[in-house]
Amino acid sequence: MHDIIVIGGGPSGMTAALYALRANKTVLILEKENFGGQIANSPKVENYPTIKEISGLELSDKMFEQISDLGVDFELEDVENIQKNGEIFQVKGNYNTYEAKAVIIANGVKHRTMGLPNEEDLIGKGVYYCATCDGPLFKGKEVYLIGDANTALQYALLLAGYCTKVHMFTLFSGFFGEKVLQDRVNAKENIEVMNNMNLVEYKGSGKLEGLVFQNTQTKEVFEYKTDNVFVSIGQLPDNDKFSNLVDLDKGFIVTDEDMKTKTPGLFACGDTRKKAVKQVVTACNDGAVAAMSAVKYLG
Amino acid sequence: MHDIIVIGGGPSGMTAALYALRANKTVLILEKENFGGQIANSPKVENYPTIKEISGLELSDKMFEQISDLGVDFELEDVENIQKNGEIFQVKGNYNTYEAKAVIIANGVKHRTMGLPNEEDLIGKGVYYCATCDGPLFKGKEVYLIGDANTALQYALLLAGYCTKVHMFTLFSGFFGEKVLQDRVNAKENIEVMNNMNLVEYKGSGKLEGLVFQNTQTKEVFEYKTDNVFVSIGQLPDNDKFSNLVDLDKGFIVTDEDMKTKTPGLFACGDTRKKAVKQVVTACNDGAVAAMSAVKYLG
Repeated sequence: MHDIIVIGGGPSGMTAALYALRANKTVLILEKENFGGQIANSPKVENYPTIKEISGLELSDKMFEQISDLGVDFELEDVENIQKNGEIFQVKGNYNTYEAKAVIIANGVKHRTMGLPNEEDLIGKGVYYCATCDGPLFKGKEVYLIGDANTALQYALLLAGYCTKVHMFTLFSGFFGEKVLQDRVNAKENIEVMNNMNLVEYKGSGKLEGLVFQNTQTKEVFEYKTDNVFVSIGQLPDNDKFSNLVDLDKGFIVTDEDMKTKTPGLFACGDTRKKAVKQVVTACNDGAVAAMSAVKYLG
Repeated sequence: MHDIIVIGGGPSGMTAALYALRANKTVLILEKENFGGQIANSPKVENYPTIKEISGLELSDKMFEQISDLGVDFELEDVENIQKNGEIFQVKGNYNTYEAKAVIIANGVKHRTMGLPNEEDLIGKGVYYCATCDGPLFKGKEVYLIGDANTALQYALLLAGYCTKVHMFTLFSGFFGEKVLQDRVNAKENIEVMNNMNLVEYKGSGKLEGLVFQNTQTKEVFEYKTDNVFVSIGQLPDNDKFSNLVDLDKGFIVTDEDMKTKTPGLFACGDTRKKAVKQVVTACNDGAVAAMSAVKYLG
């Protein structure tokens, strides 16, 4: 049994572990995929205080090394549910069940999909959500990108660096991301932006063969032949499985400013909780606060 | 006129500047003393996510370099007050008055003193508040230290590294700092800790000659001959001068979670605001949020 189980190994979960370990608590992180979470997919991070420029992967590595040195335990596990029996939490993963005196949920969010009927079948066969991971497959080719916020803008810039052309589609009349990123995208000659475009169909079965968009203003329909599309339209929380112990608001976990959920000993931090600003440094903040609350609860 | 004036160049103020600059706003930081604020005096920072170990001064330098590259403006000014005329803020410093469309207060806190009658006269003449700054004056000698929390513990460890002996006094029966720091202090042979000791008198005039403590339990009085004492008993906010525009709670500025004060266009972040957890990374969080709120207000 550990003092604290942290669910999720992104910046928030790793910072929670950092603070808990420094308070002499034993900590187990359960991560379902890769340490770093979403930011690990970000090609360039320039807004983490103290670091001018770093890849999200390197940033994640630095955090992981820091807690690794302090003796964090970790397992690759996709957590299925949490039960509280008396004062002990039982956290069930897809392989094993783990016990702890306190639990911090830092499971972030998952990719939002277009919700089209054949999308599930085409994932990895033309439909991608992570340009950092899968972009290099299309080096020297034309690529298609759907999205309008920071991640999409960063993906556009990344892809423009090694693809001949980036066709970028936004649902509304412009971008929602940071001004500095918008300016860079607009300055790139090989990024073509089309606004007010709603994806209505994936062509192909077994592999992607084309995209059908409808202009939301003119209602005109556009069809493109392509073997790829990067969908970067945001993230969704994945917390229904914890609804026995926490209150949810549009799927996000409700906490107070000490990161406490409604269940004593259970905390939530980072992008999984209901909050306005979601940046690496704000996720780290939450992690530090959650750990300090958990340590207080334990001791 | 700038888009945004940030009052204070600690981690919170510098992060606010970082986020505002990246949103293409012009930013002026007014700092009264040195960039980095309190953390610049911390000999060793180990709990900033991504950095295993760094001096507070280096940490501050990294943040400053990052915003410097982005074109931040700054002036050394001790801010005396803020007035809002229509939509424009006038920030009066000890040298000049500056104008901006939005203001972020990130002025941190100042050293708490013992409040003894001759303390003011003895500052810098035996009474010190910053071991990082003034500790090296007493290399190879015995030093006296008052305090019980993280900063005091760090000071004890720092001083123990180059002084023959550290006499450390706490007001209550133990320490309040991080467990890992407590353990390190307790393990040092040349740190002697005396609990339940209340400083009742500074001996000397013009320069410190001794300290008189009373044990709060036994009422016994102890007198020590010394030419130095480091007082590390916490910090106090310095916000009365802003009370025309913000609500204060025990001197700290009241904000909502978007860092908004009661005056539109005026924000506060970091240790100066009413909040529970005060760490570098939580100060950075506040700065990022304040900047994003200010950018939203401006645009």
